Amino acid sequence: MKTIDVCLSPELMHLYDVRDRTVVVVDILRATSCIVTALAHGVESITPIEDLNTCKRMKRKGFIISGEREGKKVEGFDKGNSPFEYTGNDIRGKRIAFTTTNGTLAIEKSKGAKKVVIGSFLNLSTVVKYLLFGENNVLIVCAGWKGKVNLEDTLFAGAVIEKLKKHIEQDCDAPLVAQYLYRAAQKDMVGFLDNSSHVKRLERLDIDKDIEFCLTQDKYQVLPRLRNGIITLS
Amino acid sequence: MKTIDVCLSPELMHLYDVRDRTVVVVDILRATSCIVTALAHGVESITPIEDLNTCKRMKRKGFIISGEREGKKVEGFDKGNSPFEYTGNDIRGKRIAFTTTNGTLAIEKSKGAKKVVIGSFLNLSTVVKYLLFGENNVLIVCAGWKGKVNLEDTLFAGAVIEKLKKHIEQDCDAPLVAQYLYRAAQKDMVGFLDNSSHVKRLERLDIDKDIEFCLTQDKYQVLPRLRNGIITLS
Repeated sequence: MKTIDVCLSPELMHLYDVRDRTVVVVDILRATSCIVTALAHGVESITPIEDLNTCKRMKRKGFIISGEREGKKVEGFDKGNSPFEYTGNDIRGKRIAFTTTNGTLAIEKSKGAKKVVIGSFLNLSTVVKYLLFGENNVLIVCAGWKGKVNLEDTLFAGAVIEKLKKHIEQDCDAPLVAQYLYRAAQKDMVGFLDNSSHVKRLERLDIDKDIEFCLTQDKYQVLPRLRNGIITLS
Repeated sequence: MKTIDVCLSPELMHLYDVRDRTVVVVDILRATSCIVTALAHGVESITPIEDLNTCKRMKRKGFIISGEREGKKVEGFDKGNSPFEYTGNDIRGKRIAFTTTNGTLAIEKSKGAKKVVIGSFLNLSTVVKYLLFGENNVLIVCAGWKGKVNLEDTLFAGAVIEKLKKHIEQDCDAPLVAQYLYRAAQKDMVGFLDNSSHVKRLERLDIDKDIEFCLTQDKYQVLPRLRNGIITLS
Protein backbone atom coordinates (compact mmCIF):
# COMPACT_ATOMS: atom_id res chain seq x y z
CA MET A 1 0.00 0.00 0.00
CA LYS A 2 1.16 3.52 -0.72
CA THR A 3 2.07 5.74 2.21
CA ILE A 4 1.27 9.35 3.08
CA ASP A 5 3.16 11.69 5.38
CA VAL A 6 2.83 15.35 6.35
CA CYS A 7 5.65 17.87 6.65
CA LEU A 8 4.14 20.46 9.00
CA SER A 9 6.65 23.20 8.16
CA PRO A 10 9.10 23.90 5.31
CA GLU A 11 11.76 24.02 8.05
CA LEU A 12 11.38 20.23 8.42
CA MET A 13 11.79 19.41 4.71
CA HIS A 14 15.36 18.11 5.17
CA LEU A 15 13.90 15.17 7.14
CA TYR A 16 12.02 13.86 4.10
CA ASP A 17 13.37 12.20 0.97
CA VAL A 18 10.99 13.40 -1.72
CA ARG A 19 12.74 12.08 -4.82
CA ASP A 20 10.25 9.25 -5.28
CA ARG A 21 7.22 11.01 -3.85
CA THR A 22 4.34 13.10 -5.06
CA VAL A 23 4.38 16.29 -3.04
CA VAL A 24 1.24 18.37 -2.43
CA VAL A 25 2.16 21.94 -1.50
CA VAL A 26 -0.46 23.78 0.52
CA ASP A 27 -0.71 27.38 1.73
CA ILE A 28 -4.45 27.82 2.32
CA LEU A 29 -4.21 31.48 3.42
CA ARG A 30 -3.63 32.31 0.67
CA ALA A 31 -0.94 31.42 -1.88
CA THR A 32 -2.12 28.03 -3.10
CA SER A 33 -5.77 29.12 -2.95
CA CYS A 34 -4.81 32.00 -5.29
CA ILE A 35 -2.86 29.72 -7.62
CA VAL A 36 -5.78 27.30 -7.94
CA THR A 37 -8.24 30.15 -8.48
CA ALA A 38 -6.05 31.82 -11.11
CA LEU A 39 -5.55 28.63 -13.12
CA ALA A 40 -9.27 27.86 -12.88
CA HIS A 41 -9.84 31.29 -14.48
CA GLY A 42 -7.68 30.75 -17.53
CA VAL A 43 -4.23 31.92 -16.50
CA GLU A 44 -1.64 30.30 -18.77
CA SER A 45 1.04 29.75 -16.11
CA ILE A 46 2.28 30.82 -12.69
CA THR A 47 5.98 31.10 -11.92
CA PRO A 48 6.64 31.01 -8.16
CA ILE A 49 9.59 33.17 -7.15
CA GLU A 50 11.06 33.50 -3.68
CA ASP A 51 12.77 36.84 -4.06
CA LEU A 52 10.79 40.08 -4.31
CA ASN A 53 13.15 41.90 -6.69
CA THR A 54 13.52 38.96 -9.06
CA CYS A 55 9.75 38.75 -9.20
CA LYS A 56 9.44 42.47 -9.89
CA ARG A 57 11.83 42.27 -12.84
CA MET A 58 9.53 39.72 -14.53
CA LYS A 59 7.21 42.62 -15.39
CA ARG A 60 9.54 43.58 -18.24
CA LYS A 61 9.18 40.11 -19.71
CA GLY A 62 5.43 40.53 -19.98
CA PHE A 63 4.38 38.84 -16.75
CA ILE A 64 1.66 40.03 -14.41
CA ILE A 65 3.56 40.41 -11.12
CA SER A 66 1.99 39.35 -7.83
CA GLY A 67 3.69 40.11 -4.53
CA GLU A 68 2.66 39.59 -0.91
CA ARG A 69 4.61 40.15 2.30
CA GLU A 70 3.16 40.06 5.83
CA GLY A 71 -0.31 39.46 4.38
CA LYS A 72 -0.29 42.65 2.29
CA LYS A 73 0.18 43.42 -1.39
CA VAL A 74 3.66 44.79 -2.05
CA GLU A 75 3.84 48.31 -3.48
CA GLY A 76 4.53 48.42 -7.18
CA PHE A 77 3.10 44.98 -7.84
CA ASP A 78 0.05 44.33 -10.04
CA LYS A 79 -1.66 42.01 -7.61
CA GLY A 80 -1.50 40.73 -4.04
CA ASN A 81 -2.60 37.55 -2.32
CA SER A 82 -6.40 37.70 -2.40
CA PRO A 83 -8.09 34.99 -4.49
CA PHE A 84 -10.65 37.57 -5.66
CA GLU A 85 -7.88 39.28 -7.63
CA TYR A 86 -7.62 36.13 -9.75
CA THR A 87 -11.15 35.70 -11.02
CA GLY A 88 -11.38 38.39 -13.71
CA ASN A 89 -10.91 38.45 -17.45
CA ASP A 90 -7.72 40.52 -17.13
CA ILE A 91 -5.68 37.43 -16.28
CA ARG A 92 -7.00 35.07 -18.98
CA GLY A 93 -4.16 33.67 -21.09
CA LYS A 94 -1.56 35.61 -19.11
CA ARG A 95 1.58 34.49 -17.30
CA ILE A 96 1.93 35.43 -13.63
CA ALA A 97 5.11 35.76 -11.57
CA PHE A 98 4.17 35.16 -7.93
CA THR A 99 6.02 35.76 -4.65
CA THR A 100 4.59 35.31 -1.13
CA THR A 101 5.83 35.10 2.48
CA ASN A 102 5.43 31.35 2.95
CA GLY A 103 3.92 29.61 -0.06
CA THR A 104 6.68 30.19 -2.56
CA LEU A 105 9.32 28.92 -0.10
CA ALA A 106 7.33 25.70 0.39
CA ILE A 107 7.16 25.28 -3.39
CA GLU A 108 10.89 25.99 -3.75
CA LYS A 109 11.75 23.35 -1.13
CA SER A 110 9.55 20.78 -2.89
CA LYS A 111 11.26 21.06 -6.27
CA GLY A 112 13.27 17.85 -5.88
CA ALA A 113 10.12 15.71 -5.71
CA LYS A 114 9.06 13.24 -8.37
CA LYS A 115 5.85 15.19 -8.87
CA VAL A 116 4.61 18.44 -7.31
CA VAL A 117 0.95 19.45 -7.26
CA ILE A 118 -0.72 22.50 -5.73
CA GLY A 119 -3.44 21.83 -3.17
CA SER A 120 -6.16 23.91 -1.50
CA PHE A 121 -9.66 23.29 -0.21
CA LEU A 122 -10.87 24.79 -3.50
CA ASN A 123 -9.57 21.76 -5.44
CA LEU A 124 -9.51 19.21 -2.60
CA SER A 125 -11.35 16.35 -4.31
CA THR A 126 -9.34 16.73 -7.51
CA VAL A 127 -6.09 16.47 -5.52
CA VAL A 128 -7.41 13.48 -3.56
CA LYS A 129 -8.37 11.62 -6.76
CA TYR A 130 -4.97 12.31 -8.26
CA LEU A 131 -3.20 10.91 -5.18
CA LEU A 132 -5.52 7.90 -5.09
CA PHE A 133 -4.79 6.85 -8.65
CA GLY A 134 -1.11 7.85 -8.66
CA GLU A 135 1.67 5.36 -8.03
CA ASN A 136 3.89 7.33 -5.69
CA ASN A 137 4.02 7.69 -1.97
CA VAL A 138 2.72 11.09 -0.91
CA LEU A 139 4.05 13.98 1.17
CA ILE A 140 1.87 16.98 1.99
CA VAL A 141 4.05 20.04 2.57
CA CYS A 142 2.41 22.71 4.72
CA ALA A 143 3.70 26.24 4.13
CA GLY A 144 2.96 27.29 7.72
CA TRP A 145 3.76 30.79 8.95
CA LYS A 146 7.43 31.80 8.88
CA GLY A 147 8.50 28.27 9.67
CA LYS A 148 5.92 27.66 12.37
CA VAL A 149 3.02 25.24 12.13
CA ASN A 150 -0.37 26.75 11.30
CA LEU A 151 -3.90 25.47 11.71
CA GLU A 152 -5.29 25.89 8.21
CA ASP A 153 -2.57 24.03 6.32
CA THR A 154 -2.60 21.23 8.91
CA LEU A 155 -6.38 21.05 8.50
CA PHE A 156 -6.03 20.64 4.75
CA ALA A 157 -3.55 17.80 5.30
CA GLY A 158 -6.06 16.23 7.70
CA ALA A 159 -8.85 16.52 5.13
CA VAL A 160 -6.78 14.72 2.49
CA ILE A 161 -5.81 11.98 4.95
CA GLU A 162 -9.38 11.53 6.16
CA LYS A 163 -10.54 11.02 2.57
CA LEU A 164 -7.71 8.61 1.72
CA LYS A 165 -7.63 6.67 4.98
CA LYS A 166 -8.86 3.39 3.52
CA HIS A 167 -6.43 3.49 0.63
CA ILE A 168 -3.15 4.95 1.85
CA GLU A 169 -1.15 3.99 4.92
CA GLN A 170 0.03 6.71 7.27
CA ASP A 171 3.79 6.94 7.43
CA CYS A 172 4.37 8.61 10.78
CA ASP A 173 2.59 10.57 13.54
CA ALA A 174 2.13 13.91 11.76
CA PRO A 175 -0.69 12.53 9.54
CA LEU A 176 -2.53 11.39 12.68
CA VAL A 177 -2.17 14.81 14.27
CA ALA A 178 -3.59 16.41 11.12
CA GLN A 179 -6.40 13.88 10.82
CA TYR A 180 -7.60 14.35 14.40
CA LEU A 181 -7.45 18.10 14.01
CA TYR A 182 -9.59 17.92 10.87
CA ARG A 183 -12.14 15.69 12.57
CA ALA A 184 -12.48 18.25 15.37
CA ALA A 185 -12.86 21.13 12.91
CA GLN A 186 -14.75 19.80 9.92
CA LYS A 187 -18.25 20.80 10.94
CA ASP A 188 -17.38 24.48 11.30
CA MET A 189 -14.03 25.29 9.81
CA VAL A 190 -14.55 29.06 9.72
CA GLY A 191 -15.48 29.07 13.42
CA PHE A 192 -12.59 26.76 14.24
CA LEU A 193 -10.10 28.99 12.49
CA ASP A 194 -11.32 32.05 14.37
CA ASN A 195 -8.94 30.95 17.14
CA SER A 196 -5.96 30.78 14.81
CA SER A 197 -3.21 33.32 15.31
CA HIS A 198 -2.72 33.51 11.57
CA VAL A 199 -6.39 34.19 10.98
CA LYS A 200 -6.35 36.86 13.71
CA ARG A 201 -3.43 38.45 11.89
CA LEU A 202 -5.33 38.37 8.62
CA GLU A 203 -8.55 39.63 10.17
CA ARG A 204 -6.74 42.79 11.09
CA LEU A 205 -6.29 43.19 7.34
CA ASP A 206 -10.05 42.90 6.89
CA ILE A 207 -10.13 39.83 4.70
CA ASP A 208 -12.96 37.78 6.21
CA LYS A 209 -14.33 37.10 2.74
CA ASP A 210 -10.97 35.75 1.61
CA ILE A 211 -10.86 33.34 4.54
CA GLU A 212 -14.36 32.04 3.89
CA PHE A 213 -13.57 31.64 0.19
CA CYS A 214 -10.31 29.78 0.88
CA LEU A 215 -12.14 27.28 3.11
CA THR A 216 -14.73 26.44 0.44
CA GLN A 217 -14.34 22.86 -0.71
CA ASP A 218 -14.31 21.76 -4.34
CA LYS A 219 -15.15 25.02 -6.04
CA TYR A 220 -12.76 24.12 -8.87
CA GLN A 221 -11.76 20.88 -10.58
CA VAL A 222 -8.25 21.82 -11.58
CA LEU A 223 -4.92 20.21 -10.77
CA PRO A 224 -2.06 22.69 -10.93
CA ARG A 225 1.31 20.98 -11.35
CA LEU A 226 4.81 22.33 -11.02
CA ARG A 227 7.12 21.33 -13.81
CA ASN A 228 10.50 22.94 -14.54
CA GLY A 229 9.72 25.69 -12.09
CA ILE A 230 6.42 26.67 -13.71
CA ILE A 231 2.90 25.86 -12.54
CA THR A 232 0.34 24.94 -15.20
CA LEU A 233 -2.70 22.69 -15.43
CA SER A 234 -1.91 19.08 -16.20
CA MET B 1 -1.09 37.76 30.50
CA LYS B 2 1.74 35.30 30.06
CA THR B 3 1.96 33.36 26.80
CA ILE B 4 2.55 29.71 25.98
CA ASP B 5 3.85 28.23 22.76
CA VAL B 6 4.80 24.74 21.60
CA CYS B 7 7.87 23.77 19.60
CA LEU B 8 6.75 20.50 18.01
CA SER B 9 10.27 19.34 17.11
CA PRO B 10 13.82 20.23 18.21
CA GLU B 11 14.44 20.98 14.52
CA LEU B 12 12.25 24.07 14.89
CA MET B 13 14.03 25.48 17.96
CA HIS B 14 15.82 28.18 15.95
CA LEU B 15 12.44 29.84 15.41
CA TYR B 16 11.98 30.55 19.12
CA ASP B 17 13.79 33.03 21.33
CA VAL B 18 13.95 31.24 24.67
CA ARG B 19 16.20 33.62 26.60
CA ASP B 20 13.31 35.02 28.63
CA ARG B 21 11.16 31.91 28.71
CA THR B 22 10.62 28.92 30.90
CA VAL B 23 11.09 25.84 28.72
CA VAL B 24 9.43 22.51 29.50
CA VAL B 25 11.27 19.68 27.77
CA VAL B 26 9.19 16.58 27.11
CA ASP B 27 10.03 13.14 25.74
CA ILE B 28 7.20 10.98 27.04
CA LEU B 29 8.48 7.73 25.51
CA ARG B 30 10.65 7.62 27.47
CA ALA B 31 13.52 9.96 28.40
CA THR B 32 11.73 12.57 30.49
CA SER B 33 9.47 9.91 32.06
CA CYS B 34 12.66 8.14 33.18
CA ILE B 35 14.22 11.35 34.50
CA VAL B 36 11.14 12.17 36.56
CA THR B 37 10.91 8.61 37.89
CA ALA B 38 14.59 8.50 38.80
CA LEU B 39 14.51 11.80 40.69
CA ALA B 40 11.32 10.73 42.47
CA HIS B 41 13.26 7.69 43.65
CA GLY B 42 16.12 9.53 45.26
CA VAL B 43 18.67 9.95 42.46
CA GLU B 44 20.97 12.87 43.30
CA SER B 45 21.35 14.24 39.78
CA ILE B 46 21.04 13.42 36.09
CA THR B 47 23.49 14.76 33.54
CA PRO B 48 22.04 14.64 30.02
CA ILE B 49 24.67 13.97 27.36
CA GLU B 50 24.15 13.89 23.62
CA ASP B 51 27.12 11.78 22.64
CA LEU B 52 27.27 8.06 23.43
CA ASN B 53 31.03 7.86 24.01
CA THR B 54 31.15 10.93 26.24
CA CYS B 55 28.38 9.39 28.30
CA LYS B 56 30.19 6.06 28.53
CA ARG B 57 33.33 7.73 29.87
CA MET B 58 31.35 9.14 32.82
CA LYS B 59 31.40 5.64 34.32
CA ARG B 60 34.99 6.24 35.46
CA LYS B 61 33.86 9.32 37.34
CA GLY B 62 31.44 7.27 39.42
CA PHE B 63 28.27 7.85 37.41
CA ILE B 64 25.65 5.25 36.62
CA ILE B 65 25.56 5.36 32.82
CA SER B 66 22.26 5.13 30.94
CA GLY B 67 22.22 4.81 27.18
CA GLU B 68 19.41 4.32 24.67
CA ARG B 69 19.47 4.29 20.90
CA GLU B 70 16.58 3.24 18.61
CA GLY B 71 14.50 2.37 21.66
CA LYS B 72 17.02 -0.14 23.00
CA LYS B 73 19.57 -0.12 25.82
CA VAL B 74 23.07 0.36 24.43
CA GLU B 75 25.54 -2.48 25.08
CA GLY B 76 27.95 -1.78 27.89
CA PHE B 77 25.65 0.69 29.63
CA ASP B 78 24.24 0.16 33.13
CA LYS B 79 20.70 1.10 32.24
CA GLY B 80 18.44 1.81 29.28
CA ASN B 81 15.32 3.86 28.77
CA SER B 82 12.62 2.01 30.73
CA PRO B 83 11.22 3.89 33.73
CA PHE B 84 11.10 0.61 35.68
CA GLU B 85 14.90 0.64 35.74
CA TYR B 86 14.73 3.81 37.84
CA THR B 87 12.57 2.73 40.76
CA GLY B 88 14.98 0.61 42.81
CA ASN B 89 17.24 1.28 45.77
CA ASP B 90 20.36 0.87 43.63
CA ILE B 91 20.01 4.41 42.27
CA ARG B 92 19.34 6.24 45.55
CA GLY B 93 21.84 9.05 46.11
CA LYS B 94 23.63 8.28 42.84
CA ARG B 95 24.50 10.46 39.88
CA ILE B 96 23.35 9.32 36.45
CA ALA B 97 24.79 10.22 33.04
CA PHE B 98 22.00 9.84 30.50
CA THR B 99 21.98 9.72 26.68
CA THR B 100 18.97 8.98 24.45
CA THR B 101 17.95 9.27 20.78
CA ASN B 102 15.71 12.30 21.08
CA GLY B 103 15.31 13.55 24.63
CA THR B 104 18.88 14.62 25.32
CA LEU B 105 18.99 16.62 22.06
CA ALA B 106 15.83 18.48 23.07
CA ILE B 107 17.41 19.28 26.43
CA GLU B 108 20.63 20.41 24.77
CA LYS B 109 18.75 22.77 22.46
CA SER B 110 16.85 24.26 25.40
CA LYS B 111 19.93 25.24 27.40
CA GLY B 112 19.74 28.93 26.49
CA ALA B 113 16.37 29.35 28.19
CA LYS B 114 15.81 31.39 31.34
CA LYS B 115 14.59 28.26 33.11
CA VAL B 116 14.39 24.64 31.98
CA VAL B 117 12.13 22.06 33.63
CA ILE B 118 11.54 18.42 32.76
CA GLY B 119 7.95 17.41 32.04
CA SER B 120 6.08 14.14 31.70
CA PHE B 121 2.57 12.91 32.45
CA LEU B 122 4.02 11.47 35.66
CA ASN B 123 4.56 14.98 37.08
CA LEU B 124 2.02 16.87 34.94
CA SER B 125 0.22 18.78 37.72
CA THR B 126 3.47 19.80 39.39
CA VAL B 127 4.72 21.24 36.09
CA VAL B 128 1.41 23.00 35.48
CA LYS B 129 1.47 24.62 38.94
CA TYR B 130 5.03 25.77 38.42
CA LEU B 131 4.14 27.40 35.09
CA LEU B 132 1.02 28.96 36.57
CA PHE B 133 2.86 30.70 39.39
CA GLY B 134 6.03 31.51 37.41
CA GLU B 135 6.61 34.89 35.81
CA ASN B 136 7.97 33.86 32.43
CA ASN B 137 6.35 33.11 29.14
CA VAL B 138 6.43 29.39 28.43
CA LEU B 139 7.68 27.18 25.61
CA ILE B 140 7.03 23.44 25.60
CA VAL B 141 9.74 21.67 23.60
CA CYS B 142 8.68 18.29 22.24
CA ALA B 143 11.51 15.85 21.63
CA GLY B 144 9.66 14.13 18.79
CA TRP B 145 11.23 11.25 16.89
CA LYS B 146 14.39 12.04 14.96
CA GLY B 147 13.18 15.53 14.22
CA LYS B 148 9.65 14.52 13.28
CA VAL B 149 6.55 15.35 15.26
CA ASN B 150 5.17 12.58 17.47
CA LEU B 151 1.79 12.05 19.09
CA GLU B 152 2.73 11.50 22.72
CA ASP B 153 4.83 14.64 23.21
CA THR B 154 2.22 16.73 21.38
CA LEU B 155 -0.43 15.23 23.67
CA PHE B 156 1.54 16.24 26.74
CA ALA B 157 1.77 19.80 25.41
CA GLY B 158 -1.99 19.71 24.82
CA ALA B 159 -2.62 18.52 28.38
CA VAL B 160 -0.59 21.41 29.83
CA ILE B 161 -2.38 23.93 27.60
CA GLU B 162 -5.81 22.54 28.43
CA LYS B 163 -5.08 22.94 32.14
CA LEU B 164 -3.68 26.45 31.76
CA LYS B 165 -6.14 27.76 29.19
CA LYS B 166 -7.81 30.28 31.48
CA HIS B 167 -4.52 31.68 32.73
CA ILE B 168 -2.07 31.73 29.84
CA GLU B 169 -2.58 33.09 26.34
CA GLN B 170 -1.66 30.92 23.39
CA ASP B 171 1.11 32.41 21.34
CA CYS B 172 0.62 30.77 17.97
CA ASP B 173 -1.17 27.87 16.25
CA ALA B 174 0.90 24.96 17.55
CA PRO B 175 -0.68 25.17 21.05
CA LEU B 176 -4.13 24.93 19.44
CA VAL B 177 -3.10 21.87 17.45
CA ALA B 178 -1.82 20.23 20.65
CA GLN B 179 -4.89 21.21 22.66
CA TYR B 180 -7.36 19.77 20.14
CA LEU B 181 -5.34 16.60 19.89
CA TYR B 182 -5.40 16.20 23.67
CA ARG B 183 -9.15 16.78 23.79
CA ALA B 184 -9.65 13.99 21.24
CA ALA B 185 -7.38 11.62 23.13
CA GLN B 186 -7.86 12.32 26.81
CA LYS B 187 -10.49 9.69 27.54
CA ASP B 188 -8.34 6.83 26.31
CA MET B 189 -4.76 7.83 25.78
CA VAL B 190 -3.38 4.30 25.64
CA GLY B 191 -5.93 3.37 22.96
CA PHE B 192 -5.27 6.61 21.10
CA LEU B 193 -1.55 6.01 21.04
CA ASP B 194 -2.00 2.52 19.64
CA ASN B 195 -2.14 4.20 16.24
CA SER B 196 1.12 6.03 16.75
CA SER B 197 4.06 5.01 14.60
CA HIS B 198 6.39 5.54 17.51
CA VAL B 199 4.31 3.32 19.75
CA LYS B 200 4.18 0.66 17.04
CA ARG B 201 7.96 0.82 16.91
CA LEU B 202 8.19 0.44 20.68
CA GLU B 203 5.61 -2.34 20.80
CA ARG B 204 7.94 -4.41 18.66
CA LEU B 205 10.33 -4.06 21.59
CA ASP B 206 7.65 -5.47 23.90
CA ILE B 207 7.31 -2.52 26.24
CA ASP B 208 3.53 -2.20 26.65
CA LYS B 209 3.97 -1.78 30.39
CA ASP B 210 6.38 1.10 29.86
CA ILE B 211 3.88 2.90 27.65
CA GLU B 212 1.06 2.52 30.13
CA PHE B 213 3.32 3.71 32.94
CA CYS B 214 4.51 6.76 30.97
CA LEU B 215 0.90 7.83 30.31
CA THR B 216 -0.02 7.73 34.01
CA GLN B 217 -0.82 11.22 35.27
CA ASP B 218 0.54 12.68 38.52
CA LYS B 219 2.26 9.65 39.94
CA TYR B 220 5.01 11.91 41.28
CA GLN B 221 5.13 15.44 42.66
CA VAL B 222 8.65 16.35 41.63
CA LEU B 223 9.94 19.18 39.48
CA PRO B 224 13.27 18.33 37.86
CA ARG B 225 15.15 21.43 36.76
CA LEU B 226 18.17 21.79 34.52
CA ARG B 227 20.82 24.12 35.91
CA ASN B 228 24.40 24.36 34.59
CA GLY B 229 23.84 21.24 32.52
CA ILE B 230 22.69 19.08 35.43
CA ILE B 231 19.15 18.01 36.32
CA THR B 232 18.18 18.00 39.99
CA LEU B 233 15.04 18.62 42.01
CA SER B 234 14.35 22.24 42.76
